[in-house]
Amino acid sequence: MSVLTPPSRTTVRVRYAETDRMDVVYYANFLVWFEIARVELLRQLGFDYKKMETEDDCMLPVVDVTCRYKAPAHYDDLIVIETRIASMRTSMLKFSYEVYLAGPPAADGSLTVDKLLASGETTHVIVGYGMQKTVLPEKYARVIRAKLGLSQDDEEV
Amino acid sequence: MSVLTPPSRTTVRVRYAETDRMDVVYYANFLVWFEIARVELLRQLGFDYKKMETEDDCMLPVVDVTCRYKAPAHYDDLIVIETRIASMRTSMLKFSYEVYLAGPPAADGSLTVDKLLASGETTHVIVGYGMQKTVLPEKYARVIRAKLGLSQDDEEV
Amino acid sequence: MSVLTPPSRTTVRVRYAETDRMDVVYYANFLVWFEIARVELLRQLGFDYKKMETEDDCMLPVVDVTCRYKAPAHYDDLIVIETRIASMRTSMLKFSYEVYLAGPPAADGSLTVDKLLASGETTHVIVGYGMQKTVLPEKYARVIRAKLGLSQDDEEV
Amino acid sequence: MSVLTPPSRTTVRVRYAETDRMDVVYYANFLVWFEIARVELLRQLGFDYKKMETEDDCMLPVVDVTCRYKAPAHYDDLIVIETRIASMRTSMLKFSYEVYLAGPPAADGSLTVDKLLASGETTHVIVGYGMQKTVLPEKYARVIRAKLGLSQDDEEV
Repeated sequence: MSVLTPPSRTTVRVRYAETDRMDVVYYANFLVWFEIARVELLRQLGFDYKKMETEDDCMLPVVDVTCRYKAPAHYDDLIVIETRIASMRTSMLKFSYEVYLAGPPAADGSLTVDKLLASGETTHVIVGYGMQKTVLPEKYARVIRAKLGLSQDDEEV
Repeated sequence: MSVLTPPSRTTVRVRYAETDRMDVVYYANFLVWFEIARVELLRQLGFDYKKMETEDDCMLPVVDVTCRYKAPAHYDDLIVIETRIASMRTSMLKFSYEVYLAGPPAADGSLTVDKLLASGETTHVIVGYGMQKTVLPEKYARVIRAKLGLSQDDEEV
Repeated sequence: MSVLTPPSRTTVRVRYAETDRMDVVYYANFLVWFEIARVELLRQLGFDYKKMETEDDCMLPVVDVTCRYKAPAHYDDLIVIETRIASMRTSMLKFSYEVYLAGPPAADGSLTVDKLLASGETTHVIVGYGMQKTVLPEKYARVIRAKLGLSQDDEEV
Repeated sequence: MSVLTPPSRTTVRVRYAETDRMDVVYYANFLVWFEIARVELLRQLGFDYKKMETEDDCMLPVVDVTCRYKAPAHYDDLIVIETRIASMRTSMLKFSYEVYLAGPPAADGSLTVDKLLASGETTHVIVGYGMQKTVLPEKYARVIRAKLGLSQDDEEV
């Protein structure tokens, strides 16, 4: 069963260092933005990824990434990344990303999005010390299940 | 029709700057290696990608990338990237990559490969000035068709 | 004559991609932060550096950088960069930077700084198309002189 | 006393990822090249920097860097970095770098250098576990003293 949480939104401003001689953002940098966006999603769920690594010995290395590029991003653009947890298994997490150019702020000052620049997914395994596969600690899994509207039995295994 | 050219081999030495706090190469850097490897493949076909851009107004932005990570790369590792042209259409090129840890040199000093660290593909459209879609100039297409063992009619469209 | 404008403050959150295997921010990334900070300082002066390049054919390549590292920055740290225009000549601009770890927010929610992590300077020449040396357009020079409390005669030449 | 060892030479090929929208190598990337060059110098002295860190608990974080940029480096340029140990104290090492555009190969195939693109220095402290200052292990100091033509008494303290 694959479900989607409501998206988390993160913004980045394109850095000069991220551009290349084609005057667009170099393609590998979208994966850096994915990483920023998924850590912010975790923060919004109440997780501190740094503590997950340091205190809970729980790391989430990427085992698979895909990215489809629709339109280039340019220097100084404000970028909005919408991120979702796409699925969870006992020792696997999957995130999906949509990267937008920011639109003009709404009347109430809130963020709007203009055109879609790229979309992608990352798949992560849960590992502990020495890169040994492990399971996501229950305190994290519980929160994600609640967000995904899953019971423990629904969880993909 | 999808065919594979014999692979081009490129080596890179892992830079300190490419590692992260997990003591492995940060995942986005594999895409930088893909880029180095495909430019070297083009060089081995007799193409100078810089001149393709500058003199022939022919750029190859990436529209799709996938990468599957099998095992981590570490600081100072010698890495071997095997690259192939996976397919060609009139305005599209597809490359595939296999990233290996280098093994000990063979008796004759030649490069050997140890375990597979990652594999991936990139899909590129051919664009000219202003990012307008165009076709691969015939002088390049001819060489690639020859390498792929294709006649002009076989070319994917 | 060398004077200091009141500092501009910019914040960045340390990215996973910016760390290295020593579990600290890789030293070259401080120069990326310097660049972000000086563009934000220019923005606070009412300048859009992208338009300076695109519309006024006025680029500011770095000819000299120094950075002194006092203490490491770590993953997910909130970083505050205080930036000043240190001096201006007709075809040269000098910026200075102090990089701090952010402290806990003040009672009124405002940003505070904890310990100094690094300090540095960058020197820039003003160039136009084809990297030819030129002078800073008067509309920019006027604003900087005002901020620096300089008359046109005081300007370093 | 400050002396210069004969230079070590390292080459790098400019990566697409290292360029920026000004169509030159982004300034922070010269510091990445400095790092590559000093590790190669150490390798030529018979040191394996990775083992220095892993087996001898001896790390060399940078405490000071300067770089002066004379001319830009461009995509696909072959770059030659000449590196020297500029000075050594019991718990400090200083390297100097000259970054050149490669010239055409000499008649005997050997590397030549064209114009100077940049020069710089890095100063490193010797630290062990937990970033505590320590001294350079004698097995390394001995080799460097020999190369510098120093007796143990000459060593700067």
